[in-house]
Amino acid sequence: MLSGRWGWVREEARATLPAGIFTTDPSAPLDVYRDEVMGLVRELAATGSPAHGFPREVGGGGDVGASVVQFEMLGYGDLSVMIKSGVHFGLFGGAVQSLGSAEHHRRWLPATIAMETVGCFAMTETGHGSDVANLETTAVYDAATQEFVLTTPHDGARKDYIGGAARHARVASVFAQLVTGGPGEEPRGRGVHCFVVPLRDADGALLPGVEVEDDGVKAGLNGVDNGRIRFTGVRVPREDLLDRFAQVAPDGSYASSIESPGRRFFTTLGALVRGRVCIAAGAGAATQQALAVAVRYGLTRRQFTRPGADGAQEEVVLLDYRAHQRRLMPALATSYVLQLAQNELTARLHDLQSAPEGSVTDDDQRELENRAAGLKAVATWHATSTIQTCREACGGAGYLAANRLPQLKADTDVFTTFEGDNTVLLQLVGKGLLTGYAEDFGELGTWGTVRAVADQVRSRVMERTTARVTVQRLLEAAPGRDEDADLRDRGWQMRLLVEREAHLLVGVARRLRRAKAPGADAAAVFDDAQDHLLAAARAHVDRVVVEALVAAEEECEDDATAELLARVGDLHVLSLVERDRAWYLEHGWLTPGRSKAVLAAVNELCRELRADARLLVDGFGIPEAWITAPIAHGAVPQPTPVPGTGRTTTSTAGAAPVEDSAAVAAVPVQAG
Amino acid sequence: MLSGRWGWVREEARATLPAGIFTTDPSAPLDVYRDEVMGLVRELAATGSPAHGFPREVGGGGDVGASVVQFEMLGYGDLSVMIKSGVHFGLFGGAVQSLGSAEHHRRWLPATIAMETVGCFAMTETGHGSDVANLETTAVYDAATQEFVLTTPHDGARKDYIGGAARHARVASVFAQLVTGGPGEEPRGRGVHCFVVPLRDADGALLPGVEVEDDGVKAGLNGVDNGRIRFTGVRVPREDLLDRFAQVAPDGSYASSIESPGRRFFTTLGALVRGRVCIAAGAGAATQQALAVAVRYGLTRRQFTRPGADGAQEEVVLLDYRAHQRRLMPALATSYVLQLAQNELTARLHDLQSAPEGSVTDDDQRELENRAAGLKAVATWHATSTIQTCREACGGAGYLAANRLPQLKADTDVFTTFEGDNTVLLQLVGKGLLTGYAEDFGELGTWGTVRAVADQVRSRVMERTTARVTVQRLLEAAPGRDEDADLRDRGWQMRLLVEREAHLLVGVARRLRRAKAPGADAAAVFDDAQDHLLAAARAHVDRVVVEALVAAEEECEDDATAELLARVGDLHVLSLVERDRAWYLEHGWLTPGRSKAVLAAVNELCRELRADARLLVDGFGIPEAWITAPIAHGAVPQPTPVPGTGRTTTSTAGAAPVEDSAAVAAVPVQAG
Repeated sequence: MLSGRWGWVREEARATLPAGIFTTDPSAPLDVYRDEVMGLVRELAATGSPAHGFPREVGGGGDVGASVVQFEMLGYGDLSVMIKSGVHFGLFGGAVQSLGSAEHHRRWLPATIAMETVGCFAMTETGHGSDVANLETTAVYDAATQEFVLTTPHDGARKDYIGGAARHARVASVFAQLVTGGPGEEPRGRGVHCFVVPLRDADGALLPGVEVEDDGVKAGLNGVDNGRIRFTGVRVPREDLLDRFAQVAPDGSYASSIESPGRRFFTTLGALVRGRVCIAAGAGAATQQALAVAVRYGLTRRQFTRPGADGAQEEVVLLDYRAHQRRLMPALATSYVLQLAQNELTARLHDLQSAPEGSVTDDDQRELENRAAGLKAVATWHATSTIQTCREACGGAGYLAANRLPQLKADTDVFTTFEGDNTVLLQLVGKGLLTGYAEDFGELGTWGTVRAVADQVRSRVMERTTARVTVQRLLEAAPGRDEDADLRDRGWQMRLLVEREAHLLVGVARRLRRAKAPGADAAAVFDDAQDHLLAAARAHVDRVVVEALVAAEEECEDDATAELLARVGDLHVLSLVERDRAWYLEHGWLTPGRSKAVLAAVNELCRELRADARLLVDGFGIPEAWITAPIAHGAVPQPTPVPGTGRTTTSTAGAAPVEDSAAVAAVPVQAG
Repeated sequence: MLSGRWGWVREEARATLPAGIFTTDPSAPLDVYRDEVMGLVRELAATGSPAHGFPREVGGGGDVGASVVQFEMLGYGDLSVMIKSGVHFGLFGGAVQSLGSAEHHRRWLPATIAMETVGCFAMTETGHGSDVANLETTAVYDAATQEFVLTTPHDGARKDYIGGAARHARVASVFAQLVTGGPGEEPRGRGVHCFVVPLRDADGALLPGVEVEDDGVKAGLNGVDNGRIRFTGVRVPREDLLDRFAQVAPDGSYASSIESPGRRFFTTLGALVRGRVCIAAGAGAATQQALAVAVRYGLTRRQFTRPGADGAQEEVVLLDYRAHQRRLMPALATSYVLQLAQNELTARLHDLQSAPEGSVTDDDQRELENRAAGLKAVATWHATSTIQTCREACGGAGYLAANRLPQLKADTDVFTTFEGDNTVLLQLVGKGLLTGYAEDFGELGTWGTVRAVADQVRSRVMERTTARVTVQRLLEAAPGRDEDADLRDRGWQMRLLVEREAHLLVGVARRLRRAKAPGADAAAVFDDAQDHLLAAARAHVDRVVVEALVAAEEECEDDATAELLARVGDLHVLSLVERDRAWYLEHGWLTPGRSKAVLAAVNELCRELRADARLLVDGFGIPEAWITAPIAHGAVPQPTPVPGTGRTTTSTAGAAPVEDSAAVAAVPVQAG
């Protein structure tokens, strides 16, 4: 159900991933661990799988989707290996592939695939991360020598957090402000462009003009050697500008097929969208690993007694407690639905990037970028909160490194920040939607009421949905604000999501219109609407994700699977509705009674799915050997009755079992 | 405003805490770091401050409150030092102090204060943590030799996660099932009792019958050497039972002044309440440290441009963005209010534990335990979520160990688990409330309607409140469900909190009554009400915490401070109302319009308090030298204009500033 179009890549990974990826020692001294990870990336390269995404002409598989799923499977192992290999193959290699010419491909990609060189990706600077357009590293063209001169003007402009820079990288794809001018033309800034810049020689010594500082220990991902790079008059030949979208002639003349500098900038960055799709995928795999550990532990760990069928006290399995189900089951359901959305996004990326040059419309590209941004934000936030929850759900055992959860938490923590800060990404998604519906919003000021415009936006939303026919049919069949509608009616659920998205979007458009009033403080208007915009974007992503569920349900042919998927889907969607039920109440989409019924339905779904909890985590398809946490393998030593002691105290500790278990629970346990 | 009754202890700590506590190296090899931390605890002992809480007769200060605040101040430094010293002085020393006789005090406490011995606290077992009554280690009395024989019956009964056990501890306070019988009496289980058990000799070698396994690397607190202990026929003299509440005579006869075994168990555990108060306090300090770093960074870090007063583009300080304010300002306000509640709890603990023996009522003691449990849960969850938020709010810089946030996150993560798992603790609080109001609930089945009983419970709640007179006055003056009431009216806010607590409590009582129906499945009824019970407990703690705010406002004499405190309090309370607004909507306490107004008020308060953000974090009173994160000290290198480049790209990236900043934001940034 979850494997998607690239099942063969999953099988390949299960068969060929180096075993060492699951047994690294992140507590080793920094450089020892870094070298261990580097060695594992080389082992991985030797399997050939990282070549899947590169062009056939240079020895790759020409299969974009396979490269994403290959990266995703690394998410079940040591995440430093995943990121370290992603930086080299995906970011460095990806920049050359996406921004360079065929000549660049020939020059760099075979060596990248074979790891004859090690690359890094030098975009972020100390002072500018999210705001790439304002990077400050410069690349000034010198026509006399036909070279670009790279300079770091001040400390804030050092390239920072660059994975690979501190120790292993030999070469970097460097983003810098290009300055050039043709004959008789004043040299001027042309915006951010990407250059291939050697950092170290074959022996690993830094080249002249390149200084590197180690970023040192981080919260996690310490197998990746992040560092800061400063360039002082570093010269690279004219040919090392990756010139797919813009070229500099020997005389310094600048040319680009994309006339608008803004559009050129976004086209350049848009070409790198695969990285974001990969992070979302890897975050999903890591989250599944954490859930596998916590759910399996929750099914064997027992705590507190209550009377069993025969009246004798018996200890209760953690996952039988509602509070425990509430922690883990909705997160488990969400992981399922996110995987379906991920598979859809991977396929979409593959199809667009495999289409003949020029056949992809701007709309398609923009939609892909928005989906990637939105899913990356939602999937990585889900990872952060779910892995945290899993840690807590495993108590003291969850705090031990041996049980994997600490490393998963620490390593994934930065996923919400890199490849685009999540808040910034959601803002992008929101802006994209506003632009997309700009025409409809134009009517807001003239004759359109909010409701009318929302109706219009709603139908547009529907036109663009992937599972359009099914969703349309569901919506048409769905009851409206009917109190009696089945809470598990997917059509009713979809309607709630769609209405919320349309309403929030129109609301934020209306607020932003105030910025255009004469004398308005545009910045203040925007600030004031920021939380509203983020909510609208989130609502959009939520709806798109659930559409992937609807599509999967449509395709599911096996009855038992369909029934399970329906419940998983219900739990996911109703958890979203529960989370946002204040909004639905405020806007008349839920009555108070109905809102309480949503809570009760979530409880009931947790109870129903608890019986399938093991089946569901097994459904992630993680090989047993990859689940290394002892507590996931029944490692909770079984208590046995001790003659002359023990049990008697239980019966003396209180009277009624209800008071009993909670009262006994009230005890100070070990600090430290 | 935040220093409370033990301001002198805070001053003392600022003057005398060893500087090394703020410069440890948690990335050092495990045993190197552990030894560094051990050395710092010894330095700390040399200052004399850890003696504050011990009895005067053995060289202590006899000041319970001072001992809590002394521990709290360690929360600004390396948390391994805090926990390591807490285990030795607070848990081991505290067990001897609270559960032992004057003779035990003489025998163990001077050596503990002087650190001539190092103690640990062996309560938790691999198989039983929260459920202490069912621990399985046994201590069987042998009258022939007048010794207790300690045995670990199986792997699940090993003492586990015991701080100090792996390396440094020489002696342990061990909780075990006592088995004994007098002459002619069959030996039988007497429940859990505490014994002082030597683990290692003066050279650090394990004593016969004691086996220790290292728990290894943990998510954090790696300066604390946790381990598992197995006892095989370990003999300790009869005198080493800590016998304040129960004694074993030489012939094996068992005697206790507390007749009920259940009550004896809870009295024993209740005597250890200080540990929980300390963890809440330390969590607060660590959270404040994280907020100091994130807020100070948010006030200097700039990202994205917008038009300034003169129309030119200028980069915006992070904390000027609403999304950033929303992340940090409510958490900051909550940290203030929690500190006020903490100070009240510390004082309450001090007063009760300093009162003459026998003068403390059961009610007082139970209320103290409930408050400690509730505040520990709320304060440590606040720590986990706030430190996570601070990390994310500092982006890539927040992920670097140098900036402290990673260590704060990793170290505090287990606070939600140890000294009582938070969920279990809240359940305790809920049960305590149900017991407290049992009489009122009795009427539910007979003549009382839910509303009438809720009214009754509400007035009882009021009788017990600490700031009773003030709260009563506020409530009486408060408007009811009036749409027009000022959202910042503290009385109106209090009414919401009180009504919610009373309503939830009565609701859960009503549901639990079903367990008493003939043929009812009591366990199922209880499971079904678990989330409801937890919500009621949380509502109770929220209300108690806000009462500490009301009391502090009453005492505040300076106008400017009072005004600031009022806004901080409003932001805290309205954030609570916002979080639970679905509930208020469902139960008719907020109309949809009013609910939206709460959101707007939170936004407005964030905006207002943003101007005082630096003042507020300075108000935590953390010395500059203790804030070691470079990013908290303006370490963001300032960008300077670069001739011939840079700025021009900004103007080409888009048109209107509103679209612009967010669109530019839409960029892939560094992965790894």
